[in-house]
Amino acid sequence: MKTVGIAGLGLIGGSIARDLAREGTRVLGHDADPHTLRAALDTGAIVGSLGSDLAAVAEVDWLVVAVPVDRAASVLRAARPFLDHATLVTDVGSTKRSIVDAAVEIGIGARFVGSHPFTGSHNAGWNAAREGLFAGARVFLCPTAETDLAALGEAHALWTLCGAITEITTAAVHDRDLAWSSHLPQFMSSALALALTDAHIAYGDTGPAARDMLRLAASDTTLWTAIGLDNADNVTAALHRVEQLLSEIRTAIHTGDADRVAALLRTARSYHPDSGRTDLPA
Amino acid sequence: MKTVGIAGLGLIGGSIARDLAREGTRVLGHDADPHTLRAALDTGAIVGSLGSDLAAVAEVDWLVVAVPVDRAASVLRAARPFLDHATLVTDVGSTKRSIVDAAVEIGIGARFVGSHPFTGSHNAGWNAAREGLFAGARVFLCPTAETDLAALGEAHALWTLCGAITEITTAAVHDRDLAWSSHLPQFMSSALALALTDAHIAYGDTGPAARDMLRLAASDTTLWTAIGLDNADNVTAALHRVEQLLSEIRTAIHTGDADRVAALLRTARSYHPDSGRTDLPA
Repeated sequence: MKTVGIAGLGLIGGSIARDLAREGTRVLGHDADPHTLRAALDTGAIVGSLGSDLAAVAEVDWLVVAVPVDRAASVLRAARPFLDHATLVTDVGSTKRSIVDAAVEIGIGARFVGSHPFTGSHNAGWNAAREGLFAGARVFLCPTAETDLAALGEAHALWTLCGAITEITTAAVHDRDLAWSSHLPQFMSSALALALTDAHIAYGDTGPAARDMLRLAASDTTLWTAIGLDNADNVTAALHRVEQLLSEIRTAIHTGDADRVAALLRTARSYHPDSGRTDLPA
Repeated sequence: MKTVGIAGLGLIGGSIARDLAREGTRVLGHDADPHTLRAALDTGAIVGSLGSDLAAVAEVDWLVVAVPVDRAASVLRAARPFLDHATLVTDVGSTKRSIVDAAVEIGIGARFVGSHPFTGSHNAGWNAAREGLFAGARVFLCPTAETDLAALGEAHALWTLCGAITEITTAAVHDRDLAWSSHLPQFMSSALALALTDAHIAYGDTGPAARDMLRLAASDTTLWTAIGLDNADNVTAALHRVEQLLSEIRTAIHTGDADRVAALLRTARSYHPDSGRTDLPA
């Protein structure tokens, strides 16, 4: 039976622990919050602690670092002295270049595979963790330049135990694509909430359409600050582009250019699989 | 028994017709699309046509103009010769200043009340119309400077028959507030779809979070072009402000100012009623 260590028992780490425990895996865990550690032990999601020094990492076959992206590299470094036994080390962050670089730098590149479960919840923390969170979810796997095939297979096996579907990509492609498909919508939702705050529009005066657009703004602010900064080059490019596009729409509206507004909205609509033949000629 | 005329049998007009027919009201209708008119007659939502010249408006007690905002004033003008009998004339558009002004201009200000049912569907057309669309929905009522209390009471009665809850406001306040709470999210969703198109991110590669943000971009492009242009001053102000806020977030990320990014995200998060005590200190 494999022993798996999970450093960080928040939404993602806690849910992995619950899934692996269900599958009969021996799970050791750690969390900076002692109440979370206690709760994870009480529920049986973990059977023991990794120790605040992470010394029990020496016992694990697989180590999952499940802390925010700005702390993952330092947890990896703290675990490094105890990593002789483990055959797989992975993480769960929404950005992948920095952690992949850190793994190579500390000499575990062959055994490291970056993971990013694409689950899209705006909840956070142990209390939001649940069995089955990853059922059917996509998980991006980002090997280092040195990752051996055995480690990649084990990362696949780990996520398969959680019911997820893995996709292999590079950290560079991952971080670029996610800046648009995930990080950009997140910061746009926050910008909308800021704008409505400025304009003194109460949340209760928004409709269902605006509320869909505002849901992400309720996400964990610490996590997303770290993601934005860690993926700054890609995120700022995406934000800059959307500012330009908003400005294009605004200019077309300001000048009363109905054809231009309609053309922009039609192009936007055609992005959506619900569009197409039902669109009206305008 | 009252006779109600509905000019335009799309999502909103068609749903009003279905609700009023259910309540036993005699409904006459018109739609530029003969197939829609035929379908509305076949389902019994309307019992007769208003005529393409709108001559049967002479028979109605209440007239509802339910066409896109860029066509509502001209329908009102076309109906004007037949409006001696009606005691209430209303519309359903998402902008209210221009139609209220038009009603006064053609001399029906005392009997006119602008209506805006705040239902927030991205579907459109007769096929999307259904009984109960307005159940529990808010409907903004915008009187003219001349509207008499009887007409305002009848507008309230009309929407109560449809199960809606009315709120009285002015056209100016309505158009300003809706620019932020409804029109801005709509154009932001379109801008996100345009950005993802530019960046060659397939819809299938977006997660549930982005899809919430993209739903509005699938809305009817003709309707939204008209709304944007009709409310241009307010909409451009809202777009400009959100461009500034996105730029603020981008600059804070670009300069690595974690405190500033976190502060912006926290302010955004505090807009949301799900936030508050569970927010983490960052």
